[in-house]
Amino acid sequence: MATANIPLLALTCGEPAGIGPELAVMLVADEVPSARLVAVGDPALLAERAALLGRRVEVRVLTPDEPVPAPRRGVLPVWPVALRAPSQPGRLEPANAGHVLETLDVAIAACLSGHAAGMVTTPLHKGVILDAGHVGFTGHTEYLRDACGMKEVVMMLATDSALHARGPGMLALRVALATTHLPLREVADAITAPRLERLLRILYADLQRWFGVVAPRIAVCGLNPHAGEGGHLGREELDVIIPTLEGLRAEGLALDGPLPADTLFTPRHLEGVDAVLAMYHDQGLPVLKYAGFGRAANITLGLPLVRTSVDHGTALDLAGTGRADLGSLRVAVALAAQMAGRSTTTPA
Amino acid sequence: MATANIPLLALTCGEPAGIGPELAVMLVADEVPSARLVAVGDPALLAERAALLGRRVEVRVLTPDEPVPAPRRGVLPVWPVALRAPSQPGRLEPANAGHVLETLDVAIAACLSGHAAGMVTTPLHKGVILDAGHVGFTGHTEYLRDACGMKEVVMMLATDSALHARGPGMLALRVALATTHLPLREVADAITAPRLERLLRILYADLQRWFGVVAPRIAVCGLNPHAGEGGHLGREELDVIIPTLEGLRAEGLALDGPLPADTLFTPRHLEGVDAVLAMYHDQGLPVLKYAGFGRAANITLGLPLVRTSVDHGTALDLAGTGRADLGSLRVAVALAAQMAGRSTTTPA
Repeated sequence: MATANIPLLALTCGEPAGIGPELAVMLVADEVPSARLVAVGDPALLAERAALLGRRVEVRVLTPDEPVPAPRRGVLPVWPVALRAPSQPGRLEPANAGHVLETLDVAIAACLSGHAAGMVTTPLHKGVILDAGHVGFTGHTEYLRDACGMKEVVMMLATDSALHARGPGMLALRVALATTHLPLREVADAITAPRLERLLRILYADLQRWFGVVAPRIAVCGLNPHAGEGGHLGREELDVIIPTLEGLRAEGLALDGPLPADTLFTPRHLEGVDAVLAMYHDQGLPVLKYAGFGRAANITLGLPLVRTSVDHGTALDLAGTGRADLGSLRVAVALAAQMAGRSTTTPA
Repeated sequence: MATANIPLLALTCGEPAGIGPELAVMLVADEVPSARLVAVGDPALLAERAALLGRRVEVRVLTPDEPVPAPRRGVLPVWPVALRAPSQPGRLEPANAGHVLETLDVAIAACLSGHAAGMVTTPLHKGVILDAGHVGFTGHTEYLRDACGMKEVVMMLATDSALHARGPGMLALRVALATTHLPLREVADAITAPRLERLLRILYADLQRWFGVVAPRIAVCGLNPHAGEGGHLGREELDVIIPTLEGLRAEGLALDGPLPADTLFTPRHLEGVDAVLAMYHDQGLPVLKYAGFGRAANITLGLPLVRTSVDHGTALDLAGTGRADLGSLRVAVALAAQMAGRSTTTPA
């Protein structure tokens, strides 16, 4: 296969004071990366972090038109986006907020133009971007949504499918969220029938499009404990969730539930399920991260491009030490490569 | 060791139309039970279910003063509590609600008098007990609380400690709940500082008393996603949880948190932790049951007696088939035996 046919992934280096730049370095320093990658970040910063970590990595600056070479150990191709101010590990600098957003813009533009087949993001720091005056900034997911002109996206986390091999108690999991970063007391009101319907349609379509699942089966959690126990523990299942699922089932979507979250995440109910829709953050993610054990990645569904991300934060305290864990980035890269490879053969 | 020195557990047979009676039969039919047990239920019903399942079990009726023999395969000692009406598998009969409650009363009295060292419960059916006119009945836990004259108890679930052996991803877990069977939208207001303080004191004291942990370490979940992220995702951590933990830490309690629930349930944060306090049902139990995989049991803390329970319901659809899974009952019996054994050597 010619190099140009291997899907190309743009890897944004994220917050320069965090572990993003060194994860990019580590990914190519010790092994052949599993995909054709180009980092999007400051080349001098990447070389500096490689030196700090004692890793021999050639940071190879590419022009936009230059082909990105096949994956090779010790070589990190880069589309350069210059820092706005010097960066030290662990020290946030609001002047670099614009730099972080520019790396995203470069990656998004490359994906939308077809130059790249997908993008993988390392962590940014919301607080410092807000401090720099980007009012209302809430994170990668919403930034991508707006940049792509979409009304709604879905956050999904997935564990490495290689976990499948670890025995019947360790199923690979995909967990999408109906609400994400909301105070708990606002969750119940945020779950409306129209929203739930839109999210399920996105989840269904993208399991087909990016994951190659012909007829996806989705298990849906109730909002309340025991999925409301017939109305005794809350009425949202009866008033919102059940009618929505029934409407979509009538169109042929295979939907289980609403099921009690504490019984759904057991082998009996997960068997044959392609994704779980949890109603809120702490209903779905603790079990996902417990199961994933450092090998989970975040995927944004509903975009016209492939985007995966690590499932952790900037880890300012680890930055510059080389002790950051590559596990989640490896999964994010492998997932994006799979998704991007699928999309070239199965156009939506 | 004389038989009389082996802690005696009273095993209530629960809803007669459910799987409780046959679980009691199965527990002794195929193996030597791991504890000295006496079933509390209707002897004829137990013999009937044994015959239905094709299990050879001698149902041995004991008077209250008769010693309960050492565990033996094929023998089920019983303290008789007669059914009020005939019972068929899967068919609820409100006339038997009084029977179910009487089995609890017998077991509680035996524990409080010192005749039994603990009790293990199989599932009852809340709905049929309410239908029978026991207004306000909400389940075993609250019934036990009231019968023992306590103001507050804590529900904790635990996985089998044998899971420890299954590798670093499969830590044994104990998860206590700050709220239990509440609609999600009522959870935030139910977490008050005085209540949280009382629950943590009960959890701490009972980890010492029943589990032999000299200086318990408890990890506490935040209420909101990311534990509120410094107030950006809810203020309950700042206003209620953090001040409560600080007050108790000043007394010497070892408390971690409040931690984001999706990072707490990872090996790095669970190491050295004796129990997790989750703020609500679906924050803590999905991961517990995923990890426990059919081998988890429920424990009521804050009582003057040992009480464990299976972590599942009456399973009316399985009753009479013999296909019910003994896994949780085995764990509940083993846990109660350990706790009761500890309490005889470490009086509170």
